Amino acid sequence: MRSNFRLIAIGAIVVSLVGGILIGRFSGGLGGGGALAEIAADRGLTVEQATGALKAFTAPGEWDPYILVSSGGHSGQLHLVGVPSMRLLKTIPVFTPESWSGYGQGADWSEGILAEGSTDKQAAELAWGDTHHPALSETEGAYDGRFVYINDRANGRLGMVDLRDFKVKQILDLPNMQTSHGGVFATPNTEYVHISSMTPMPQTDDGYAPLEDYAEDYRGISTWVAIDPETGRADLDDSFQIELPPYTQDLADAGKLASDGWAFINSYNSEMAVGGNMEGGQPIEVGASQRDFDYMHIINWKKAAEVAAQAGKTEMRNGVRVISLDTAIEEGLLYFAPEPRSPHGVDVDPTGNYITVGGKLDPHVTIYDIELIEKAIAEENFDGTDEYGVPILKFDAVVAGSVEVGLGPLHTQYDGRGHGYVSLFLDSAIAEFSLGPKAGIPEAEAFQLVDKVQVNYNVGHLATTEGDTVAADGQYLVALNKWSVDRFPVIGTLKPQNFQLIDLTDETMSVLADMPIGFGEPHYVQIIKAERLVNAIDTYEPGTDPLTFARSSVATAAGEERVEREGDTLHVYMTTVRSHFTPDIIRARAGDHVVIHLTNIETLADATHGFAIPGYNIQASLDPGEVVTVEFHATKTGSFAFYCTEFCSALHLEMQGWLLIEP
Amino acid sequence: MRSNFRLIAIGAIVVSLVGGILIGRFSGGLGGGGALAEIAADRGLTVEQATGALKAFTAPGEWDPYILVSSGGHSGQLHLVGVPSMRLLKTIPVFTPESWSGYGQGADWSEGILAEGSTDKQAAELAWGDTHHPALSETEGAYDGRFVYINDRANGRLGMVDLRDFKVKQILDLPNMQTSHGGVFATPNTEYVHISSMTPMPQTDDGYAPLEDYAEDYRGISTWVAIDPETGRADLDDSFQIELPPYTQDLADAGKLASDGWAFINSYNSEMAVGGNMEGGQPIEVGASQRDFDYMHIINWKKAAEVAAQAGKTEMRNGVRVISLDTAIEEGLLYFAPEPRSPHGVDVDPTGNYITVGGKLDPHVTIYDIELIEKAIAEENFDGTDEYGVPILKFDAVVAGSVEVGLGPLHTQYDGRGHGYVSLFLDSAIAEFSLGPKAGIPEAEAFQLVDKVQVNYNVGHLATTEGDTVAADGQYLVALNKWSVDRFPVIGTLKPQNFQLIDLTDETMSVLADMPIGFGEPHYVQIIKAERLVNAIDTYEPGTDPLTFARSSVATAAGEERVEREGDTLHVYMTTVRSHFTPDIIRARAGDHVVIHLTNIETLADATHGFAIPGYNIQASLDPGEVVTVEFHATKTGSFAFYCTEFCSALHLEMQGWLLIEP
Repeated sequence: MRSNFRLIAIGAIVVSLVGGILIGRFSGGLGGGGALAEIAADRGLTVEQATGALKAFTAPGEWDPYILVSSGGHSGQLHLVGVPSMRLLKTIPVFTPESWSGYGQGADWSEGILAEGSTDKQAAELAWGDTHHPALSETEGAYDGRFVYINDRANGRLGMVDLRDFKVKQILDLPNMQTSHGGVFATPNTEYVHISSMTPMPQTDDGYAPLEDYAEDYRGISTWVAIDPETGRADLDDSFQIELPPYTQDLADAGKLASDGWAFINSYNSEMAVGGNMEGGQPIEVGASQRDFDYMHIINWKKAAEVAAQAGKTEMRNGVRVISLDTAIEEGLLYFAPEPRSPHGVDVDPTGNYITVGGKLDPHVTIYDIELIEKAIAEENFDGTDEYGVPILKFDAVVAGSVEVGLGPLHTQYDGRGHGYVSLFLDSAIAEFSLGPKAGIPEAEAFQLVDKVQVNYNVGHLATTEGDTVAADGQYLVALNKWSVDRFPVIGTLKPQNFQLIDLTDETMSVLADMPIGFGEPHYVQIIKAERLVNAIDTYEPGTDPLTFARSSVATAAGEERVEREGDTLHVYMTTVRSHFTPDIIRARAGDHVVIHLTNIETLADATHGFAIPGYNIQASLDPGEVVTVEFHATKTGSFAFYCTEFCSALHLEMQGWLLIEP
Repeated sequence: MRSNFRLIAIGAIVVSLVGGILIGRFSGGLGGGGALAEIAADRGLTVEQATGALKAFTAPGEWDPYILVSSGGHSGQLHLVGVPSMRLLKTIPVFTPESWSGYGQGADWSEGILAEGSTDKQAAELAWGDTHHPALSETEGAYDGRFVYINDRANGRLGMVDLRDFKVKQILDLPNMQTSHGGVFATPNTEYVHISSMTPMPQTDDGYAPLEDYAEDYRGISTWVAIDPETGRADLDDSFQIELPPYTQDLADAGKLASDGWAFINSYNSEMAVGGNMEGGQPIEVGASQRDFDYMHIINWKKAAEVAAQAGKTEMRNGVRVISLDTAIEEGLLYFAPEPRSPHGVDVDPTGNYITVGGKLDPHVTIYDIELIEKAIAEENFDGTDEYGVPILKFDAVVAGSVEVGLGPLHTQYDGRGHGYVSLFLDSAIAEFSLGPKAGIPEAEAFQLVDKVQVNYNVGHLATTEGDTVAADGQYLVALNKWSVDRFPVIGTLKPQNFQLIDLTDETMSVLADMPIGFGEPHYVQIIKAERLVNAIDTYEPGTDPLTFARSSVATAAGEERVEREGDTLHVYMTTVRSHFTPDIIRARAGDHVVIHLTNIETLADATHGFAIPGYNIQASLDPGEVVTVEFHATKTGSFAFYCTEFCSALHLEMQGWLLIEP
């Protein structure tokens, strides 16, 4: 097989020498540009559109230079998209069982992850999640291509995907918090992954408290999940939580460089509205929009980690150390800065000096300066405290500037050249604005609106290439538009969303291409240079347990296949290779407990095999070298034709066997 | 909102008048072609690649002229892809629960479909499927854009998706058959959807028979599922099955025009090998490849329908009428034609005259002629019978021609200009060949190899635009390559597949673009002109039950919201509208049975709302006008912040409420 591919590769080189002359040589001539113009005209493309075609295209067999890592919203998954081609490269299942990859359909490793990810904090076993904010692991504030973390907004959980094999390795069900929206980020060296609650939760034994006791019993939670630097796994023992007032904590970001050691969390609903629109109250959307200011939470996380390590400063609550709100205030871990009402995004620029907040119900972005914040804290330049005693920094003392950008500013990303890009939900536009001198912009040009481009429609998040790291490179911007309305053919009452690719390398921004998203409701994405994914492996070592990357204790080599019966339990040690299973007949009796240890003994990349049993709801997938165990009770008699679900060879259909369950 | 979109649309027109000058006017000049050539050169694109970029591009906001309807393999779903842009437009869940669309995550309509789709034929409740062969409904042999049917290879089931709202409406668990591979098609007026078994199944009471009794007790099944012309639903009472010998029945196709009333099913393993590679036997792949010929099954389905309607000609078996093998032979419903060994695809050309079979282990395609088949049947020009008594037509009497095309020919599609295109799995290529005079090709040019193009890699199915209907138009071909190997960045040990778009409008075929498929393992696709999807609706009528399209009995209008308690059951009649639920507080007690009837009272397209309850594993989705009911037992006390999972407005985050489950 391998030699076939080599032949094809040689063929391709010949083609590129003979027929693949670069257009540049004929620029403007009939052999190059003229022919292209003709094709564009034939297809009815404008110059602008044809430019988009050429700029967004990644040629057959070529690799995209960037990979966009996207949350999947209530699909519960992660999605990888090539940039600039905007092709969906892969869906990685995290919180929702997915049968193509055999995730949660009988394979031991995935069943285990899902089961551990649903503790008795939950009322039911969970089979979905609401992924919102992917956080790629970082080293010195830049993506290191090792892991990606993703939260489940619905149920307060965190998943970890290993970027060696791009499979989820852990789901952590976080105590003391329920929903979690945008409060996820990795610290600059991935010491911690932060996840905060969105709606506060009663900190009571049974998770219940009357709404009348909201201010007293409900609390927000900022969780600092400690990460094992080797495995990327979360360790709850080393993690800690900080109690927050029962506002609605929202987006969050880590400081970096100038602001390293700090973290920032937006909040709204400092009004503590709880709704009750059929009980004489106002809807929450009205009740939560009364005050002119809400609070940006400013957390000294390095200091908090020290406090959490001290005896007597925390209490254990459901298996995790918690710093109470009082202790957080007392120890100087938590400060507030006023934000114009109902803020949404909070985003630290690549230099770490500036923190931009989008005002949602205010047409400005407000840009805070970490030096001013530190100074105000040092000088106790406070405007009193909130009702829980958290010191409020004076607004004018900490703001470096504000820019009127348009209606509904939400999130900001950066280009590494001193400019920010903010999504305008109500305007359906992206506004580009300048930062200040600490980001290299002369004073006279600082904090000004620079450019604006229309997007379609209702943009939520946006992402620039590596735009929330120290390495932002300002090549592309992707707008995550929540509504597509009329952009795609009518294919049902549930519409796709619309990602739009925007070029940042010209003087003005321009939309190059649309990408329909009809498989999830992504909320946030990060875009990483593909070359940083140096840990990615092509195949497993033979006999690998995908959970640990170590050799599996039930790995089976060719010739070692066997069936062992222990009472009512049948252990089958099976291998898969093109194009058969060994053994290809399993003889069981009704009532047996059948345990099948499968080893894919292929060594060639892409030689994945599947293992499905009709009627028994089992579908496992085995990449080359992978070992997976499936088990089930033989509750029903019959002759079941198990088979390989991956089209693996010309004789793939013949890759089947018989599971006989005798009466 | 609507007026906003109108403004944007007007803006777009202005842009196209002012800035959107067609390249054609500057063909070859600097303002058009030259600029394009420069961009292509900047990006390192060859002329061939830049041509692909321009030909495959669908400009932002423009609609693709074709929609590719793809199976999703063991993802269990259907996928819609725009052609030529090769953008994934939507995933439609069918056999596997999917939480973005709220399918099988608590909503009554979808829970009901999944539950009905898993009868006690199965050993377990099924939560996945292996979709293989979509069949778009047809009128007079052309797609009519009304329904699409899709089989579950693993468990012998059929799903139906309504192309009004693009949601699944029915899963039918077919009696007497287990696995089902490629035997799915709609008859030319969708009187029936055909689905045949792949591996035969014991026709015994308990579904079990020893492999020693394989020839006697196991049978293949050809199922003719009757379709209600109004609703598209399958009706098992009007359906019938035909018993087949226990060979492995594989791909199938309906006759059309010249061959209307006939159906064709390939088979292999006429050797009846059952494996046993650890019991002294050969692997099935070896045992099933011994004979030089297998059998194309030729079924007179119109006559079979008449026979099935006659008293005494069928027996009821698990709720469906079955024509026994003996009756099928006796009544002249079933004939065999020899096929070179281990055939795979069988595909009827647009005129209905020719049936092409790919030889898998033979480098030829064999082209049968329906006129010759009918003549041989009429003249009883038989080469004896198989061991079950099925008459075998003389090979030379029914074959119009054969073409040596290359290694591993599988499937054939057509362009409506008298040419066929066959996928070559082992060669990783597509071969174009000519048909004969009845398809408009002069005798001298008939049955010849015309062109060949390399694809990457291991192509399985392929599809041309409307290529398996009477309306094949020969614009594009999509190659479904099973392996991608090195075509995409290394993003894990499980590789995407690779769809390749091929232009059929030039003299020679050329690959325009690659599309990674990292979300399923599609087997077959059909490509329909988008303009045929005339039934597609943008929004539901207010208060619609999505299962029936009728007004739901629990639809709730604004102002009619209420909570009604009946003993331990709490009925909540709730509405959703930007940006609140009414009521936004639900007060329940531990142990209650909570039933929430949700009506999305939005009327604007795209104003979908979600409804998720933390911890309770519930996520429903409601398109504008849609009514959905979720119910659960309040097993756990607590204050649960239910919320809208679709980003619906600037105050979307505020669209939440409190489910209080008091101790």
